[in-house]
Order: sequence, then structure tokens, then C-alpha cells
Amino acid sequence: MRLPVILFLTAISTVLAGSVTIQTLVFPSETATSYVEIVPMKLLNLKAFTLCMRVATEISIERKTILFAYRTGDFDELNVWRELDGRYSFALSGGSVVFSVPDLGAMQTHFCVTWDSSSGASALFMDGRKSLTKLYKKGHTIPPGGKVIIGQDPDSYLGEFDAKQSFVGEINDVNMWDSVLSDSTIKDMFSGKRVPRGNIFDWETIQLTTNGAVEVVNTEL
Amino acid sequence: MRLPVILFLTAISTVLAGSVTIQTLVFPSETATSYVEIVPMKLLNLKAFTLCMRVATEISIERKTILFAYRTGDFDELNVWRELDGRYSFALSGGSVVFSVPDLGAMQTHFCVTWDSSSGASALFMDGRKSLTKLYKKGHTIPPGGKVIIGQDPDSYLGEFDAKQSFVGEINDVNMWDSVLSDSTIKDMFSGKRVPRGNIFDWETIQLTTNGAVEVVNTEL
Amino acid sequence: MRLPVILFLTAISTVLAGSVTIQTLVFPSETATSYVEIVPMKLLNLKAFTLCMRVATEISIERKTILFAYRTGDFDELNVWRELDGRYSFALSGGSVVFSVPDLGAMQTHFCVTWDSSSGASALFMDGRKSLTKLYKKGHTIPPGGKVIIGQDPDSYLGEFDAKQSFVGEINDVNMWDSVLSDSTIKDMFSGKRVPRGNIFDWETIQLTTNGAVEVVNTEL
Repeated sequence: MRLPVILFLTAISTVLAGSVTIQTLVFPSETATSYVEIVPMKLLNLKAFTLCMRVATEISIERKTILFAYRTGDFDELNVWRELDGRYSFALSGGSVVFSVPDLGAMQTHFCVTWDSSSGASALFMDGRKSLTKLYKKGHTIPPGGKVIIGQDPDSYLGEFDAKQSFVGEINDVNMWDSVLSDSTIKDMFSGKRVPRGNIFDWETIQLTTNGAVEVVNTEL
Repeated sequence: MRLPVILFLTAISTVLAGSVTIQTLVFPSETATSYVEIVPMKLLNLKAFTLCMRVATEISIERKTILFAYRTGDFDELNVWRELDGRYSFALSGGSVVFSVPDLGAMQTHFCVTWDSSSGASALFMDGRKSLTKLYKKGHTIPPGGKVIIGQDPDSYLGEFDAKQSFVGEINDVNMWDSVLSDSTIKDMFSGKRVPRGNIFDWETIQLTTNGAVEVVNTEL
Repeated sequence: MRLPVILFLTAISTVLAGSVTIQTLVFPSETATSYVEIVPMKLLNLKAFTLCMRVATEISIERKTILFAYRTGDFDELNVWRELDGRYSFALSGGSVVFSVPDLGAMQTHFCVTWDSSSGASALFMDGRKSLTKLYKKGHTIPPGGKVIIGQDPDSYLGEFDAKQSFVGEINDVNMWDSVLSDSTIKDMFSGKRVPRGNIFDWETIQLTTNGAVEVVNTEL
């Protein structure tokens, strides 16, 4: 007779307890040398994706800053930017789609990008709130075979970095899916529920290759 | 057979009910004489800490204000500041680490500082939101044997105060741990869950020595 | 055996469901004639109080606006103001205590005032957040025998109104207690939990006497 109650208490404590430890990337200063390569669990051969991360940065008002870069030998295939004018964008091998959303700051923001090739529907999420939807690169496929790096924008395949566009601040909990997650799933993730694990990147089990002055700090969620 | 359910209801009501009464320190005006000394339950011989408080203040735009001071005979060992330019910082015996976060105001903010000597990881929390992590004083140990005061910055051991840097406003629920609490524990604390009691300072059982024009008001949480 | 659990679930759904309909006062424009008198369930002979309401208004930047007035033959015994400079205050027969808190606006705000004669502790709450505590009129007693009105500031006993200080906008859910409620009770009220009913004013059963151009609209919570 006691079993249901005990199970219920167990479920609550699993949701609430701070028992997950994840790695946090700290980029203390502007460099052309510090970056982290992350290896996907499957090829980035994508007709749709959801990319999420927690990010905090003391960005100066006029600065273009890279948040995520996926580059093949030929192109920047999926780059996420904080633009010079404070807007946010992502680019799939040419052109980009730009959103006038609140700026990131020194307090951590849960930040996601979603894109679906079938309609071109593109949106951002900040702390669980969804932006307007824009249509971009309908029918496009993101090609496999590149490298994913955090901290720098590679102007060639894994090389030639520009310090002025490097990331400065903190990034963790980078997760990626090959589908568009529901609005409520993204809101739950922001709230700290850790149920859906990324199938391209899963930050809890991710392997990082750090280069230059990047500190990896363990954070208990 | 009813016992588990009854226990569960009791646990919920204990967490949610406003049955805890705590002391609130009110500093009504700028002085060089009003301060509160608080006595720790164990020595501040620290390789890591979490320091939290609830604070509200009608700070003027250009004013340096002390939020917490721990001083030994020789040094300011752990001082937390609202800087002249509205940024927030803490200093461990020389130098400081500074964060560009939202300013405090007349509405109460749950404010925490965490630091871990093993990596130097330093962060602020405001109303459950975490700042970016900065690296500061890796390998340092905070030494025991000083005095902790609220309301003034001691330029010598428990003496010589500067009214221009005194705290004006309200502080309560000052709790301190000798470890870095998890992000979710700090978020729970902000929400009013009162489970983890500080092992250096526990505001529910704390002993205060007030000096000058400080009012101690009882507040039911 | 299942009874306690079922009762518990019923209680939760009653608290959360939008089954309560209350009256909303709409003051469409500035007048010297529109006001609502509300009759207390007990005399306002008070050593402490909590006064809450939900209020929305498109206040212009420089305008003094009355939010609540209790006047005896002799004095304004408890008036709540939005001051000319955007600060908020209340006055107990002479002088006032003023708070630099965020301004009200066109989005509804849950707004409370608390005061306790034993210490003089005075605070505001906006959407569940508490302001700093200020000390005001320690030892004072609010006297019985006056009239409570919403919409105008009576410069004499229920008369002589100034249109420039009249309330324009929407007010509902005005509740008042003869004690200081706990912080968590006020936060629960903001969240829509409707458990503690006011013992001076209970808006769910209140009787209103409207005068002039005030619309009373039914709102489902």
C-alpha cells in the first residue's frame, strides 16, 4: 500500500535534487587561440534542428560575437551570432536570419535556435520565451563532415580566427537535436527539467577538446 | 496505513507555510556608527563558500556600498561591494572580481556569492539567476580569526568606518556555507524553500550584536 | 482509506481553478466626481494592517494619483499614493513613508502595503516581491469612524475632490486585514491562491456604492 507514495516522493526528489554535475566553459578574455571542439554523436546531415545552450557574457554594446560554429571545408554551415548591433542571428552557408530580441548579459540566459527545412520556420528562445517565427532556407539541407567549435569563428576549416569576434564569458549545457522540439519542452529545459537528452550533442556525456586559455569548471545543477 | 500520506502533507505544509519568523536588519540612514556583528558557528577557514542574503536598498546611482565584510587584523578577507559604477564585486584580501549585473533596488533581491578555490570559479546569483563564472584567486585560502560585520566597511580591525560607504536599507536571511551549493539549491532558496541551513551562518538561529541606529524587525516568511 | 488523498486533490483543484468571479472597478477618465465607497466588516481601529489590490493604470509620468483613502472627520488616516515623481507612499494622519519602487503601468500589478505599529515596520509588495522595510509611526493607532473610498482623495470628510489626483484605470481584488500577513501568504495571493480572506475587506463578498462614471465589470479569475 505504501508503494505509490514512495515512488511519488522519489520522483519529486529526482526532479528537484541538484545531483547532476556538468562542465562549464569559461573564456576569460578575448583571444584568437582559445576554443573548444565538440564531437557530435551523429553526423550533422540535417533537415531540422534544435540547438540550446546556457550562456552569459559581459558583451560590449558594439561587438560581433560568435556563439556556435559548424564549418565544413567549404562553408560556415551553421553559425550563431550576436551581431554588432545587438541582434541575434544564425547562418546556414550564406545569408542569415536576424532577430531583434533582448540582449544577452552577465546573468545566464537559456538560449535556443530552432529551424525546420520543410517550411523554413526559424525561431529563437530565450529563457523559455519564444521569438517570432521567420522563414529561412526552406528546402535546404545542412551537410555532414565538418567540425563544431565553441569560442571562435573559423574562417577556414578549423583555423584562422579573429580575436575581435571570439566568445568571452561562459557557456554550458550545449545540447542539439535533429528535430524541432516543442515550445513546452524548451520551456521545461529552461526550468531545469533535464528529461530530453540531445541526440547530436548531449552535454552530460559530451567529450570536449579544449585549446588555449579555456577553463572547464564543474557546476552542480 | 494512513501514516505516509499524513507525513507527506505535513512535509508540504512545513515547506510552504509562513511559519518561520526571522530577524530583518533595517539601516534607516547613512552613518559611520551603525553596524551588526554576527558570530560564525565555525571558523572562516575557507577553500570555498556560498554566501547568500536578501537585500533591498534605495541606492543612489553613484555610491560605493558595503554589503558584507570579514576582516582579520591584517586584511579585508571577504568584502562584498556594490561598486561606484553599479557593478558588484567581492574581494579576498587584495584585488577583486567584478560583475556587470542588474543593480539592486528597493524591491528585495535574493543575492548570493559563490567561490571555489580549486578552480577559482566565482559567480553571483540574483533571484535564482546565475551570472557568468569568473576565475579569481585560484588556490587561495580565506584565513580564520576575523570579525564579520554588516553595515560598515572596517578599514581597521572592527573600527574606522566611512559613512559614505555604509549600508542603507534592509538585509536579512544572511546564510553562509563552507562549500559551493548547487545552482538548483540556490534557486530553491530564492523561492522560499528553507531546507539547507547554513553551516557558518544560519540566520534562523543567528546571534546578532547591534551597534548604533540599526532596527531589528521580526518578519514572518 | 482513499479519502484523505481525494480531499487533498479536491482542495488543490479548488485553489487553482478559475472559478471565482469578482467585480472590477474601471475609472475611464479623470473626474472630480467618480468614486466608490466600500464598507468595512469591522471598524478600522488598527495597530497593524495589510492592504492589497490589483491595479492597472496608464499613469502619466508627472501625476500624483490616489490609490486608497480612509478619512475621518479630522484627518486622512490612511492614504496610499503614487507620488508626482513616480515613487509610492502611504500616509497615516500626517507625514508619509515613501518608497522608490518600480512604477505601476498598464499591465495589472498585485500591490500591497503592510504596517505594524509595534515596530513601525512598513513595506510594499509588488507582484509578490517585497520592498525594503522602512520605520514609520511606531506606536501609532489608526482610529475608527471614517469612510473608505477608491478613486478620489477626500480633502474633507467624503467631499471636495481634486480631479488632478483622481484615479484613472482599473482596480479590483481590494482586500484588507488587521494584521501583517506573512511574505509567503502575500506571494501566494499574487499567484492566484485565494485562501486567506480579508477580515476588514473581502473583495469576494464586498458591497460597493458607486458614484459618478465608474463601471463595474465582472472578471473571472
